Amino acid sequence: KSSLEKLARDIAKRRIRVIDLTQLLKPSTPVIQLPPNFAPSAPFSISEISRYDERGPAWYWNNIACGEHTGTHFDAPIHWISGRHLTDGATHTIDPQRFIAPACVLDFSAECARDERFLVTPKHIKAWEKKHGEIPAGSWVLMRSDWSKRSDPAAFLNMKEDGPHVPGPGPDAVRYLIEERDVHGWGVEAVGTDAGQAFAFEPPFPAHALMHGANKFGLASLCNLDQLPATGAVLITAPLKIENGSGSPLRVLALVDD
Amino acid sequence: KSSLEKLARDIAKRRIRVIDLTQLLKPSTPVIQLPPNFAPSAPFSISEISRYDERGPAWYWNNIACGEHTGTHFDAPIHWISGRHLTDGATHTIDPQRFIAPACVLDFSAECARDERFLVTPKHIKAWEKKHGEIPAGSWVLMRSDWSKRSDPAAFLNMKEDGPHVPGPGPDAVRYLIEERDVHGWGVEAVGTDAGQAFAFEPPFPAHALMHGANKFGLASLCNLDQLPATGAVLITAPLKIENGSGSPLRVLALVDD
Ligand SMILES: Nc1ccccc1C(=O)C(=O)O
Ligand SMILES: Nc1ccccc1C(=O)C(=O)O
Repeated sequence: KSSLEKLARDIAKRRIRVIDLTQLLKPSTPVIQLPPNFAPSAPFSISEISRYDERGPAWYWNNIACGEHTGTHFDAPIHWISGRHLTDGATHTIDPQRFIAPACVLDFSAECARDERFLVTPKHIKAWEKKHGEIPAGSWVLMRSDWSKRSDPAAFLNMKEDGPHVPGPGPDAVRYLIEERDVHGWGVEAVGTDAGQAFAFEPPFPAHALMHGANKFGLASLCNLDQLPATGAVLITAPLKIENGSGSPLRVLALVDD
Repeated sequence: KSSLEKLARDIAKRRIRVIDLTQLLKPSTPVIQLPPNFAPSAPFSISEISRYDERGPAWYWNNIACGEHTGTHFDAPIHWISGRHLTDGATHTIDPQRFIAPACVLDFSAECARDERFLVTPKHIKAWEKKHGEIPAGSWVLMRSDWSKRSDPAAFLNMKEDGPHVPGPGPDAVRYLIEERDVHGWGVEAVGTDAGQAFAFEPPFPAHALMHGANKFGLASLCNLDQLPATGAVLITAPLKIENGSGSPLRVLALVDD
């Protein structure tokens, strides 16, 4: 007998808690800023169709628009050139079984408070593993930075003369997670999965280039990672079924034992 | 000990199957058609930002736009005037615990094949309950009509001189599910949760007016209901966290024992 019947009961009775890892989606939601020689993404916008008025007396609804990588969002493998040929790498071709997976949460909030350009290295990951055990294959690895607590969009993007000052993974950390741990994907609180200075890394944007090339996923603009245990949470990360979508805004839920 | 650890393992080992109840989201996705005196909803649209080209050499991404009630979508209680004052009735205020709930699937595909304007009555529901047991409080009730197999958008909307010929629930069925069974919500394969002729019901649009007035949810444009058991599936239905959203397109997943 499977765990399914018990799951519904445990959720209803709140023996399992559902934690919302999603930022509020609104026009001021920060969107990644690229150098001006690249095409920009649309911010989130919303416009009322009717609100219990002459346009629709009994109903309220809106039209919405945004880039696929806006707010709390999912990066599919075809988002990056390294994943372009994967036949199961778009929002509509990924096996839905892969939208539910366990998570390890690595707390680098103290390091990020000290250094806005903090980079995760294999040494940091091995230190976490010494304490919490080896990262199991097929796990999300979530980087807690407390970056989501920066409620001012300018402080969240933290753009400087030399690009964004935002923490993230170094290339060797990304390689370690893929090659030694065969993780499910990489998730962060920042606007994108890569560090602010990752354009200058070798390879550039390793959390995109290496993870997606290995058919793994990304999650960005997460929040409430401080409410998760280091191990034991299960994540639900189901993007919109956009035809040939490179990703999408989504609701990210974490299930945790209470 | 909760069912959570076992859940992740059961999904990875495919002892639990994840069934995608979501229609493909693309420009031809059918959108509800209202009489011309009411404001219409935008269809889904998508426009390329870059595709591994001069606009973004290593990345592919799109901007998207649509109405909140486009494709497979979630109806929040504030969608209807009867739910407008609920403080937990918008996409961003609903308790996330309520995004996971069990489902009962009532198969009316034969009836709908015979009569495109088939209406569910309490008698039909009681006949189902005689066979499968009482609908448990807190369950989604899903109406299988096989309507999602109409791949031609015109046949799916089935608009006629006197409005859409599309099956759905009669007012007494909706009342029965709310008052006698305290269900979680009502889900259908058709473009909207109400029958095509529901504008003329008393009350008009009962699946909207009564369900949302009782702080219950709707799901429309579902597919693959023919792959679900009558009882025992668990649904994941997490809308985008739109500020004051009346609903949203979403990915609907069903977990079933294999
Ligand atoms: N780093 C990027 C470079 C180009 C396009 C998008 C990104 C993202 O981070 C994203 O996926 O949000
Ligand atoms: N019946 C309606 C009337 C007006 C607006 C929307 C609807 C829907 O069915 C919907 O929620 O898709």
